[in-house]
Amino acid sequence: MNNVPPEGIAEVLRSSSNLLWVDVTDPTEEDFRLIEEQFGFHALAMEDARKQNQRAKMDEYDGYLFITMRGALPIIEDMAEEAGAAQEIDVFLGPRYLVTFHRSDCAAITETRTRWEQRPGRMPAEPAYLLYVLFDTVVDGYFPVMDALDEAIDRIEDEAFSPNSVADIGPALVLKRRLLLLRQTLAPMRDLANSLLRADLDLIPAATRVYFQDVYDHTLRLLEQVDLHRDILTGALEAQLAQISNRLNQVMKTLTSISAILMSMALITGIYGMNFRHMPELEWPYGYFVALGAMALIGAGLTAFFRKIRWL
Amino acid sequence: MNNVPPEGIAEVLRSSSNLLWVDVTDPTEEDFRLIEEQFGFHALAMEDARKQNQRAKMDEYDGYLFITMRGALPIIEDMAEEAGAAQEIDVFLGPRYLVTFHRSDCAAITETRTRWEQRPGRMPAEPAYLLYVLFDTVVDGYFPVMDALDEAIDRIEDEAFSPNSVADIGPALVLKRRLLLLRQTLAPMRDLANSLLRADLDLIPAATRVYFQDVYDHTLRLLEQVDLHRDILTGALEAQLAQISNRLNQVMKTLTSISAILMSMALITGIYGMNFRHMPELEWPYGYFVALGAMALIGAGLTAFFRKIRWL
Amino acid sequence: MNNVPPEGIAEVLRSSSNLLWVDVTDPTEEDFRLIEEQFGFHALAMEDARKQNQRAKMDEYDGYLFITMRGALPIIEDMAEEAGAAQEIDVFLGPRYLVTFHRSDCAAITETRTRWEQRPGRMPAEPAYLLYVLFDTVVDGYFPVMDALDEAIDRIEDEAFSPNSVADIGPALVLKRRLLLLRQTLAPMRDLANSLLRADLDLIPAATRVYFQDVYDHTLRLLEQVDLHRDILTGALEAQLAQISNRLNQVMKTLTSISAILMSMALITGIYGMNFRHMPELEWPYGYFVALGAMALIGAGLTAFFRKIRWL
Amino acid sequence: MNNVPPEGIAEVLRSSSNLLWVDVTDPTEEDFRLIEEQFGFHALAMEDARKQNQRAKMDEYDGYLFITMRGALPIIEDMAEEAGAAQEIDVFLGPRYLVTFHRSDCAAITETRTRWEQRPGRMPAEPAYLLYVLFDTVVDGYFPVMDALDEAIDRIEDEAFSPNSVADIGPALVLKRRLLLLRQTLAPMRDLANSLLRADLDLIPAATRVYFQDVYDHTLRLLEQVDLHRDILTGALEAQLAQISNRLNQVMKTLTSISAILMSMALITGIYGMNFRHMPELEWPYGYFVALGAMALIGAGLTAFFRKIRWL
Amino acid sequence: MNNVPPEGIAEVLRSSSNLLWVDVTDPTEEDFRLIEEQFGFHALAMEDARKQNQRAKMDEYDGYLFITMRGALPIIEDMAEEAGAAQEIDVFLGPRYLVTFHRSDCAAITETRTRWEQRPGRMPAEPAYLLYVLFDTVVDGYFPVMDALDEAIDRIEDEAFSPNSVADIGPALVLKRRLLLLRQTLAPMRDLANSLLRADLDLIPAATRVYFQDVYDHTLRLLEQVDLHRDILTGALEAQLAQISNRLNQVMKTLTSISAILMSMALITGIYGMNFRHMPELEWPYGYFVALGAMALIGAGLTAFFRKIRWL
Repeated sequence: MNNVPPEGIAEVLRSSSNLLWVDVTDPTEEDFRLIEEQFGFHALAMEDARKQNQRAKMDEYDGYLFITMRGALPIIEDMAEEAGAAQEIDVFLGPRYLVTFHRSDCAAITETRTRWEQRPGRMPAEPAYLLYVLFDTVVDGYFPVMDALDEAIDRIEDEAFSPNSVADIGPALVLKRRLLLLRQTLAPMRDLANSLLRADLDLIPAATRVYFQDVYDHTLRLLEQVDLHRDILTGALEAQLAQISNRLNQVMKTLTSISAILMSMALITGIYGMNFRHMPELEWPYGYFVALGAMALIGAGLTAFFRKIRWL
Repeated sequence: MNNVPPEGIAEVLRSSSNLLWVDVTDPTEEDFRLIEEQFGFHALAMEDARKQNQRAKMDEYDGYLFITMRGALPIIEDMAEEAGAAQEIDVFLGPRYLVTFHRSDCAAITETRTRWEQRPGRMPAEPAYLLYVLFDTVVDGYFPVMDALDEAIDRIEDEAFSPNSVADIGPALVLKRRLLLLRQTLAPMRDLANSLLRADLDLIPAATRVYFQDVYDHTLRLLEQVDLHRDILTGALEAQLAQISNRLNQVMKTLTSISAILMSMALITGIYGMNFRHMPELEWPYGYFVALGAMALIGAGLTAFFRKIRWL
Repeated sequence: MNNVPPEGIAEVLRSSSNLLWVDVTDPTEEDFRLIEEQFGFHALAMEDARKQNQRAKMDEYDGYLFITMRGALPIIEDMAEEAGAAQEIDVFLGPRYLVTFHRSDCAAITETRTRWEQRPGRMPAEPAYLLYVLFDTVVDGYFPVMDALDEAIDRIEDEAFSPNSVADIGPALVLKRRLLLLRQTLAPMRDLANSLLRADLDLIPAATRVYFQDVYDHTLRLLEQVDLHRDILTGALEAQLAQISNRLNQVMKTLTSISAILMSMALITGIYGMNFRHMPELEWPYGYFVALGAMALIGAGLTAFFRKIRWL
Repeated sequence: MNNVPPEGIAEVLRSSSNLLWVDVTDPTEEDFRLIEEQFGFHALAMEDARKQNQRAKMDEYDGYLFITMRGALPIIEDMAEEAGAAQEIDVFLGPRYLVTFHRSDCAAITETRTRWEQRPGRMPAEPAYLLYVLFDTVVDGYFPVMDALDEAIDRIEDEAFSPNSVADIGPALVLKRRLLLLRQTLAPMRDLANSLLRADLDLIPAATRVYFQDVYDHTLRLLEQVDLHRDILTGALEAQLAQISNRLNQVMKTLTSISAILMSMALITGIYGMNFRHMPELEWPYGYFVALGAMALIGAGLTAFFRKIRWL
Repeated sequence: MNNVPPEGIAEVLRSSSNLLWVDVTDPTEEDFRLIEEQFGFHALAMEDARKQNQRAKMDEYDGYLFITMRGALPIIEDMAEEAGAAQEIDVFLGPRYLVTFHRSDCAAITETRTRWEQRPGRMPAEPAYLLYVLFDTVVDGYFPVMDALDEAIDRIEDEAFSPNSVADIGPALVLKRRLLLLRQTLAPMRDLANSLLRADLDLIPAATRVYFQDVYDHTLRLLEQVDLHRDILTGALEAQLAQISNRLNQVMKTLTSISAILMSMALITGIYGMNFRHMPELEWPYGYFVALGAMALIGAGLTAFFRKIRWL
């Protein structure tokens, strides 16, 4: 895999039987035009390569495949941040070449290069196997993201079931939204893996196909993880909503208890505040203290009662 | 593509091998009869062309296809307005002709004409490719609508999670309804794209079929967008409902706190409003001020307590 | 299609190549026996024809098809009434005959007869086409029902979003139930249309099959309508439930405001109702009016405050 | 179908071409061993026959089918009782024999015997048809259960929508659980019917297959019934929960109204309970009655107001 | 099945036609290398064998199958504990050998050995049948877990419907989470059983395949159980949430009743606490007692009234 001047690609393709990997970082319009000319790619495929935010997919053309894959973005500390967008890599797979387009900050490409150069000797030096290394690297990039989500969900679950939680469902909903975006990115990745696996694609030899089965299994596991997380979050949300309701009940019981206690005591002061001429108790020497005592008794009795039925 | 008098269509079809595009704006009953005569279309297809509000679909007839497609209406500022209805275009695709029926305010037709006239020279001058340009233009018309919905949903989400929102779920539900209508229009469009792609249709050459794959991908992306939006809206609705419940809790806590504070203070006034003959405090020179002080103390203490437990 | 004496059916079938339509209204056991004898239908099919409330379906027998279809009942003003039950028509389709069984008040049969007699000359006088006319008439009978439901749902939606609605979810739930019943009737009708369309049925010539495609499209549209309506109703129900919660919040805020205002004012009366010997204000000449003024001030101030925070 | 000594089965199978129905009630381990020996059934099938609470299913073995079917239990008055469990019948279908195992209280077997003996002469005396009679009898046994559920659901619905209901969602949830259990039993029965219908089973002649189509239709109808009932129950539950919320609103309005009325009246008594030296009203000869009148007026006025806005 | 030195495996494989079972407990990196060398397994399969927490699956390689299965962990008393993780067993199935990797505390391996040694003589001594015994043992290990969940759900249901329950939805949600994890483990097990059953696998003879059908039925039943449990739990959760709401209603009714009673009585004390000069009742000799009586009457009357309408 020596370096080849861009204008000489067509010639190299004709003359050499070596594997040619053309990797274009932050492609300009000129790059696209050059590649289109040298390889003779279909205008539609080039248009898709130019556009960003495509779904992962595979299109078959005469003699080559056009593949779009989307990688996970590096994890950001603040889980709430909008990090659902994913990195796009556009790939042309031919019988003896691989062409890749991507943005400059794409870790998967660097890692693919390293893995490719360090591959064991028995691995075939064919474009399909290079495509597998790239695809596997991209898919593996989702696992740390998934682990971070895993931890965030654990924290939310602990919070949801703890008796003193603030019952703020915001973080759970933000996480649910991230899972939705992740699912929308991952599902086409699984379909892509499946179509690379299943199709009677001449460009992917049978011996290499088994590797794509492995990638397919990984995408399946990632999607199952996403679905499990969504169901767990739904449970945590239900727990939080039930907690809100339970607390409302508790607040109302407190209000009822306090009202009953204070109003009962006030009723006694009301009675002895009446101005009837003949009210024997008022003349008692210790009437006032008896009244205070009665109030204290009623207050303590009701408090005990409400505590017993767990309203206070 | 010169202009041809309507009555001469049948003759042109017989004699010329050129592509003939017959575009009928706001067709009258006479137009329908003329077209039926000149082209010999099946009565059922003509009946479908006459009716509005059909689902997007493709029917195979002997020697031609009848296709109904539905475009997005231009976006109206007020998202609440009933803009779910979509523009219908009815198309007959024959080996050398394309017949289109539509209402007068159909931007997609004008744009198709422009795109067709400006198409690169290497594009084939065949009806199937013209159909692709029309179909692609119609599908592309959904993207600005989707972007407008995108923004509306972002606004609703921001509102739902902001602590001072009015918790009015009306806009979210109106948006959800629009997404339902959009989905009902788009799903048959996807099926139409798929049937144009998949079928062993002689009228669509293999070289042109790849373009319909592109349109199919667009409809898939639009539908995924709609589904994602619905899920996000559902989350926003849950957030708003949880907020309503949380606020109810807060109101009840306020009520309980105020009741407890004011009733406790009133209890003291009640006590010293009693008319017992022997109440030592009443004779104290500063009894009144002591009582006021006690009330202030109780009030301040309870207020501090309720603030501490965040009930006030 | 002359009239034929029932006992002569078998002979007519043998001798004539004309289309024979045997229509039995409110069939008696004797009618069933006669038909079974004359046509030699299978006992199972006859048993199904005898029973009511079957699902729409098609069974293939040797040389004929047995078809059960279910029509919509005429619309009743009171949408709440249990009108989900549907009219059943049982049909035997043979190479040269059509046998139909139905109850006496079946409008679809009368209308089919009219449509059949008025059909354009080019339409084939074959049983399959007569079956299409009958099937199409039956399916078309669902559209007015759907329109009535449409209006009812619009009314419920308007009610759900209007700020002064009574938040009675009863009508929405009754409508939802009707949609459930309608779906249960329509889904087998769609399957029936599909199986008439798809199957390699010798009894339905290719030229006639295209008509059944049309009926199939109609059943699809009806079912999409039903599903859309259910989703819209679900939204309206959510709106009403959220409104109930919002109103509870409002009531609680009112209660809290009123309690705070009246209790604060009462506290002042309590203070000056105390019997301390030394209470300077009591001696003031305008003390009473100052107290009333203070109460008025507190009341007005709190009212203004609660109005400002929209609790009153 | 004469009686045959158990030990002579193998010989009868060899020598006779008659249909042999071996029916074992409450089989003992010895019965199982005898049958296994005489018929030479596979150990796995015998193991399944020994176990209870299997799912309905069909297993193909060399020369015979092993079928497990589950019947509905007779209906118990108290719908709440755990009657979801179903009766199991294990069947071996061979070219000239049918072997059935079941518990002693199995009404379906008795009824099958009656139906078989009374079958019209033209019905074939083959094991497949006997299997059909048994299967049909078992499936028919679900209809009375369904009717009982139907009535129970009607009662719950009436209750849910009646304005004075106690809003007890218990019975609805118990019914929902029963429907869940019924669905779990019925779905495998439908799959069993379908596999008896679809498979290229030599043991079921084409002429007999049409009968299984009939049974399949019945299982479909039963399952649709179950699903419809679940949806209706869900609606009834929603109605009850909305009613609970609505009533809470009503209670709170009552509380607010009562508080406002009584507190306003109390405020007046508070005012005239103050001890200011100069309070002109206190000196009025009819001051007391004016005060009482004012209180009555305020009370009546507020009551009328709250009645008008429907809070009382 | 004599013991063979690890280094001699390759030779034994070449020379002997006996079944060879290599079982590696807590494999070290050296074990993996040795096995890879001796058997010549593919690097990808060995990598999967090294990793833990894979989904159950089957990969076809040239001449052998790689199978991952996951068993249920022994049940822990405290249902809340995180016991969703499952034991993994990795298996290589070749024409004359079975290689298994697992952790040391794996009961299924021990039990498989016992079952294998005690198998009836007619069972074939082939690797596929040994695989069946292992697979069946692993799947059977789920049934006691399911029974434990069954009991836990029964307890939760009883609690949910009991009128005095504490309405704590925590346990139900914990159980729901466990069911989610169980489903995630079991669904790939069912797919594995199905792929062992369906595939045209030369390594599994037709006579042995019927045993895998049995295992497949077990996994189906387990999954149906899980789904049924989830639906039942959902019902129990709904019951608990409805109960919370119902209780809130009851608390509010109590509060309203107590407020109405105490405030009405207080109103009377307020009236006779007024200081009007002319209040005839105050002069009555028994005025005080009449007032107390009136208060008692009002209190008793309102209490009776609220009891009658079931608010108290």
